[in-house]
Amino acid sequence: MADKTMTEGNKLWGGRFTGATDPIMEKFNASISYDKRMWEADIKELIGPVAGKLHTGRSRNDQVATDMRLWLSDASKSMKTLLIQLISVFVERAKNEIDVLLPGYTHLQRAQPIRWSHWLLSYTWMLKRDVERLEQLTDRASVLPLGSGALAGNPFNIDRPFLAQELDFKEVSGNSMDAVSDRDFVAEFLFWGSLLSVHLSRWAEDLILYSTKEFSYVQLSDAYSTGSSLMPQKKNADSLELIRGKAGHMYGRCTGFMMTLKGVPSTYNKDLQEDKEAMFDVYDTLTGILQVATGVMSTLMIDKEKMKSALSPDMLATDIAYYLVRKGIPFREAHGQSGSCVALAEKKQCLLSELTLEDFKTVSEKFEDDILEVWNYENSVDQYSVYGGTGRSSVLQQINNIQQFLKDKAV
Amino acid sequence: MADKTMTEGNKLWGGRFTGATDPIMEKFNASISYDKRMWEADIKELIGPVAGKLHTGRSRNDQVATDMRLWLSDASKSMKTLLIQLISVFVERAKNEIDVLLPGYTHLQRAQPIRWSHWLLSYTWMLKRDVERLEQLTDRASVLPLGSGALAGNPFNIDRPFLAQELDFKEVSGNSMDAVSDRDFVAEFLFWGSLLSVHLSRWAEDLILYSTKEFSYVQLSDAYSTGSSLMPQKKNADSLELIRGKAGHMYGRCTGFMMTLKGVPSTYNKDLQEDKEAMFDVYDTLTGILQVATGVMSTLMIDKEKMKSALSPDMLATDIAYYLVRKGIPFREAHGQSGSCVALAEKKQCLLSELTLEDFKTVSEKFEDDILEVWNYENSVDQYSVYGGTGRSSVLQQINNIQQFLKDKAV
Amino acid sequence: MADKTMTEGNKLWGGRFTGATDPIMEKFNASISYDKRMWEADIKELIGPVAGKLHTGRSRNDQVATDMRLWLSDASKSMKTLLIQLISVFVERAKNEIDVLLPGYTHLQRAQPIRWSHWLLSYTWMLKRDVERLEQLTDRASVLPLGSGALAGNPFNIDRPFLAQELDFKEVSGNSMDAVSDRDFVAEFLFWGSLLSVHLSRWAEDLILYSTKEFSYVQLSDAYSTGSSLMPQKKNADSLELIRGKAGHMYGRCTGFMMTLKGVPSTYNKDLQEDKEAMFDVYDTLTGILQVATGVMSTLMIDKEKMKSALSPDMLATDIAYYLVRKGIPFREAHGQSGSCVALAEKKQCLLSELTLEDFKTVSEKFEDDILEVWNYENSVDQYSVYGGTGRSSVLQQINNIQQFLKDKAV
Amino acid sequence: MADKTMTEGNKLWGGRFTGATDPIMEKFNASISYDKRMWEADIKELIGPVAGKLHTGRSRNDQVATDMRLWLSDASKSMKTLLIQLISVFVERAKNEIDVLLPGYTHLQRAQPIRWSHWLLSYTWMLKRDVERLEQLTDRASVLPLGSGALAGNPFNIDRPFLAQELDFKEVSGNSMDAVSDRDFVAEFLFWGSLLSVHLSRWAEDLILYSTKEFSYVQLSDAYSTGSSLMPQKKNADSLELIRGKAGHMYGRCTGFMMTLKGVPSTYNKDLQEDKEAMFDVYDTLTGILQVATGVMSTLMIDKEKMKSALSPDMLATDIAYYLVRKGIPFREAHGQSGSCVALAEKKQCLLSELTLEDFKTVSEKFEDDILEVWNYENSVDQYSVYGGTGRSSVLQQINNIQQFLKDKAV
Repeated sequence: MADKTMTEGNKLWGGRFTGATDPIMEKFNASISYDKRMWEADIKELIGPVAGKLHTGRSRNDQVATDMRLWLSDASKSMKTLLIQLISVFVERAKNEIDVLLPGYTHLQRAQPIRWSHWLLSYTWMLKRDVERLEQLTDRASVLPLGSGALAGNPFNIDRPFLAQELDFKEVSGNSMDAVSDRDFVAEFLFWGSLLSVHLSRWAEDLILYSTKEFSYVQLSDAYSTGSSLMPQKKNADSLELIRGKAGHMYGRCTGFMMTLKGVPSTYNKDLQEDKEAMFDVYDTLTGILQVATGVMSTLMIDKEKMKSALSPDMLATDIAYYLVRKGIPFREAHGQSGSCVALAEKKQCLLSELTLEDFKTVSEKFEDDILEVWNYENSVDQYSVYGGTGRSSVLQQINNIQQFLKDKAV
Repeated sequence: MADKTMTEGNKLWGGRFTGATDPIMEKFNASISYDKRMWEADIKELIGPVAGKLHTGRSRNDQVATDMRLWLSDASKSMKTLLIQLISVFVERAKNEIDVLLPGYTHLQRAQPIRWSHWLLSYTWMLKRDVERLEQLTDRASVLPLGSGALAGNPFNIDRPFLAQELDFKEVSGNSMDAVSDRDFVAEFLFWGSLLSVHLSRWAEDLILYSTKEFSYVQLSDAYSTGSSLMPQKKNADSLELIRGKAGHMYGRCTGFMMTLKGVPSTYNKDLQEDKEAMFDVYDTLTGILQVATGVMSTLMIDKEKMKSALSPDMLATDIAYYLVRKGIPFREAHGQSGSCVALAEKKQCLLSELTLEDFKTVSEKFEDDILEVWNYENSVDQYSVYGGTGRSSVLQQINNIQQFLKDKAV
Repeated sequence: MADKTMTEGNKLWGGRFTGATDPIMEKFNASISYDKRMWEADIKELIGPVAGKLHTGRSRNDQVATDMRLWLSDASKSMKTLLIQLISVFVERAKNEIDVLLPGYTHLQRAQPIRWSHWLLSYTWMLKRDVERLEQLTDRASVLPLGSGALAGNPFNIDRPFLAQELDFKEVSGNSMDAVSDRDFVAEFLFWGSLLSVHLSRWAEDLILYSTKEFSYVQLSDAYSTGSSLMPQKKNADSLELIRGKAGHMYGRCTGFMMTLKGVPSTYNKDLQEDKEAMFDVYDTLTGILQVATGVMSTLMIDKEKMKSALSPDMLATDIAYYLVRKGIPFREAHGQSGSCVALAEKKQCLLSELTLEDFKTVSEKFEDDILEVWNYENSVDQYSVYGGTGRSSVLQQINNIQQFLKDKAV
Repeated sequence: MADKTMTEGNKLWGGRFTGATDPIMEKFNASISYDKRMWEADIKELIGPVAGKLHTGRSRNDQVATDMRLWLSDASKSMKTLLIQLISVFVERAKNEIDVLLPGYTHLQRAQPIRWSHWLLSYTWMLKRDVERLEQLTDRASVLPLGSGALAGNPFNIDRPFLAQELDFKEVSGNSMDAVSDRDFVAEFLFWGSLLSVHLSRWAEDLILYSTKEFSYVQLSDAYSTGSSLMPQKKNADSLELIRGKAGHMYGRCTGFMMTLKGVPSTYNKDLQEDKEAMFDVYDTLTGILQVATGVMSTLMIDKEKMKSALSPDMLATDIAYYLVRKGIPFREAHGQSGSCVALAEKKQCLLSELTLEDFKTVSEKFEDDILEVWNYENSVDQYSVYGGTGRSSVLQQINNIQQFLKDKAV
């Protein structure tokens, strides 16, 4: 009995309870290790004197919800810094390597020649959206639940707007029942991390392919590769595979929490305790992902010659169609005639560029001497000077845009 | 052979291909029924003359991406209208039924008395966040991909900002490789629908419980109930169970698409065709969910007497602790003493309110005659007059806030 | 430089590599803590002399796959023991409490009277299927990958069937490329854990409802409850809410791994490293869930009187229909007439059992004096003497069946 | 009012209900189109006379559960037939193309030379497991729920074992409460389809890579490819991308249903209506996937020369280590020395096979003239003659094993 009092002594609800808690249950229930992580975020380190007045009428429900939102606010800043760093590396390379051309792919088939910088920059737009989403969800989470009590509110006339100001919240929650069990911000954060991870998984997939023997466009630095315990010649892009795999992990966390959240009635239910493990894991994992991605991207070696030599005349088949369009042929017809040229080259087992003018004329009388000018990859690429295109001027404009974005986000 | 030419004749890529397509493959590939849905959204109905110039250099990749974003813009307006309607019904009832008290629950255990209006309004805050998220994702999707070609851009100097203006897009996409395969807006929409559905699943769960014989707080109108093929006395809240079940369905769509998206390299890959079925299904299902939810909420009958009679003195145990706090006892101690009162009442097999002043004094000398004033549910509820609390004044303020929000969103 | 050699010295692939590994990458890559867990399962502690010969030609790929399958074999035994214990507790209570009646629910509406034992036993059938599924997946995982090398096989004529026998595997893998990356057994285990958790989530949901003030059928022992930091009267079924919440967690793990697995080409890719964390977490979490569920079930207090008093005459409306069927009325018509009786009682604001014979006769001339015999809950329940029904004889048969199953599974 | 009677007239629960159903609710609730699909499976077409007796005491709950299990039994047969066909195509090719060698990959990096047949067969083992799992889940679903009524059982002494026999069920359900809401078989089927789809997604990923210009190992027949609306030279492996994408779709269905299932208490709740749409969609989608996969596999063209020319001496680095092991060097040391040879060749910018004996001797004195015999890919492959290896004899044995399996499964 004395024993019980001792073990129960520290629980706030000791007054009414008479039985001891099963130690297995105690362990199962434990959120201590997760709570510790929020220690720094806890309001007690933040607003000493006010905290004293607050203690009465405060429940674990509104306190934990407040701590988590404070934690998210910090976590968000850290995530954003890592994202900005990663974007910077992409842009820096895009600037330095603007002359490099390589095949652009759709359906993983060579499509049209593009600038390597254009590929690099394509990821900055995804990451830019990730930054924007993060800012929006962080703002939306900046709502103070403190003062909501267990579910009904606080009866001691506390000044919630003042508390919000002190704790750096943008708003005060408008309904105490919603406030104690609103975990939208957790779900949003988990989904945000999942979508960001999917972007990086696609990026990793690209680089894994580009680093195969067959593509040979890039080589990872040893710092981000591993070898094989059996095959001495192997150099594996483990870092990228891990990143690719983690995207599944992240979304699994999102799914787990969404499934838990769906199964509860309104206000606080203990099921919601799942929120912290998921949130912390996503944060930790993303920290690793972003740092490694930045490292990989900073040290990646590219093989310009391999990239260039992978450009082939058939990738300019569209340019032949465009050529015919410029000669007045409707596009649908021009596309068919260009296709016939491709088929002709296949039949003659020669490159598309090795067809003679006579060959071309068997397909259409519109072909003239100037068809030879088509076989210039630089020119082909630079015709895409439309906003957002892969032409040099457009890529330079993109670089400016992203650099401006980085400047705006710099603290 | 003639046959082949005929079946292949309408495909734009007929020029090079020599074999016929397997009919099963044709069916497997078909996105026609989904494409039809975007017919109205298609740019051809929208910008006749410009469309002509556009045809050249446009690929299915940038065209479909444009159509989908136009479709989402319309879908979003329709979703928002339905959401606003639903919120209005909640607020209307909250105004009319502000006098009704019932037990508030945490962990599904009776916690403290609250206003029925407070419960009603708690859902409007979730839905308000859903509106905000919808607006943000719709804005973010308002980026014109047209002019990105297959992946490299458009070579005919088209005026993309002009097109964006004509088609009512806020921005022009900044990178053609990203533009043709960016499906963030699909993922965001699917997740948005999932989180909204989770809110309504929690709401449905509450009402399913409240409509049980055991709670008996509410009764669904026959219009939203069904009977049993075997048990003549049954009246089942099928509408709510369907809504609760659909939340799983919605998130399944989100999961399916996220898993598909994760598995592709950059730019367009045919896997992405999964986007439309998911997006349309979520839209259709949500339309049903929101309409039925509005119907249920508009016609729900409540039983004030049952709600009132479910309030019991032990739900005011916190008020006893507050009483002691007001007499100078620190909260932790007050909580323990109130717990002892609860235990005492259980031991004496009487209600907490049936304890005599003498009984109370065995727990603490601080108890005096005025402890009897605690047993008033109206007073107890109205002490939560803090912003966001369940007190009458706070609830009235909430109603004002939500009504202002509705006014701001009214077209 | 000396530094590098030192840090790199322990890696088997040191021969070719010249750069050091980024420490962040090292940490990101680390599976050491998970590998340690498989230490006991590792073949080196198992087959010393053979292991020596094996070292050559063995890769991390076939070794880790072997270790994981050995680990699963042990884990499976432990899971099964816990499941059998839990089923035993259900059966034991079913035997002891066979006389207790309570309302059976469909759609959470009172449907027909049932035996409490029938409810208890319903979960043993789910758990029985879980045991069967576990046995099947464990058997299917009992395939030895060792000897598959990195992907091509082992070139040293090792005797794989002998190894399989020594290591207690049922079979030898038939294709080395499949063997090194087959993670079906991981996916199956994760899904198995998810479905089991869903069963226990439904069970927890039932008990959470039954332990509300409104139902009051059961009370959890203090050992599995917690109180409130604010409300002294509260007793929350936290243990059950945690179990209910963990079902989401489990399926999240399954989703995470499936999404990762979907994104890889054939043979081994580093993404698969996600397998261990998921598998171990599911095992640990299930261990907690099953132990707590067994504890809750062993110590649960039931309130027979509350259960009995919740039975109401309208729950026998089907019996009235059956009564009419026995008098020769077709069921569809009998159902309608019974429904009219229910409506009549509602109109007269009396219980269905308080209708007079005259009242009944206004609905159908078939009603006679013996209608009064319908109002006996024991008789009503015992009419369901069909195999699998809730009648006493059927329930006793069920108990026998499950006890036989337990006997068969006892080691 | 007359109107209401008319619209309500056909509902079995008309007796008690007085309000009309909202048409939107009606539509939302509709499972008619799904029910129609089960028409053929419905017991009425199956057991006329018995069905008459059954009608009384049968509820929609046990009837629908029975219909679904009957449907699954048929669906399962059809799935199995398609799987067997697909496996047959793999084996047939493996037999015919056993002489073809190509690089085997791990981490998508060239690892060791393997037989093309070994790659083909690796998928038959996955599909073989899929067949086994299908059989087990189908057997487990072969449990007759009929006679369980709404939840309590049937009161008319029906002979359930006889019914089970007539309807070709293996067993009779043992608990009526479990029987009416057990949807384990649905969840199992959805997960089964997901795992099968993941296998085919990995297969599709391999072939998508092998059909890139960079690999050029295979070419899809035109029947399973599509072209580009913009780029005349393109030939895209759309069929494979669709299959890869559908794996996400399938698992989305599984997730949707699991999330719904998790959120319900015991016995039947209307949420479970989600089961049919998911089950039918998975069946239909899989039918398409399996047929297209069989078509692709049957018509795929391989380029043996490209495969052969992709084999490079560095892929035999492991063989050098093995060479040293055979000369008495411990594997760890041999691995390091082989790695040094690889590094040496890289430094000298020559092929590993172009190193002279003198070069080799700078690494280890153990190298002798016979090192030159290592450079034979056929020999290298055939050294993996262990069971399950890629050596010719092992592959032939595999073919026998799978053919025996096909013979066993043939009806």
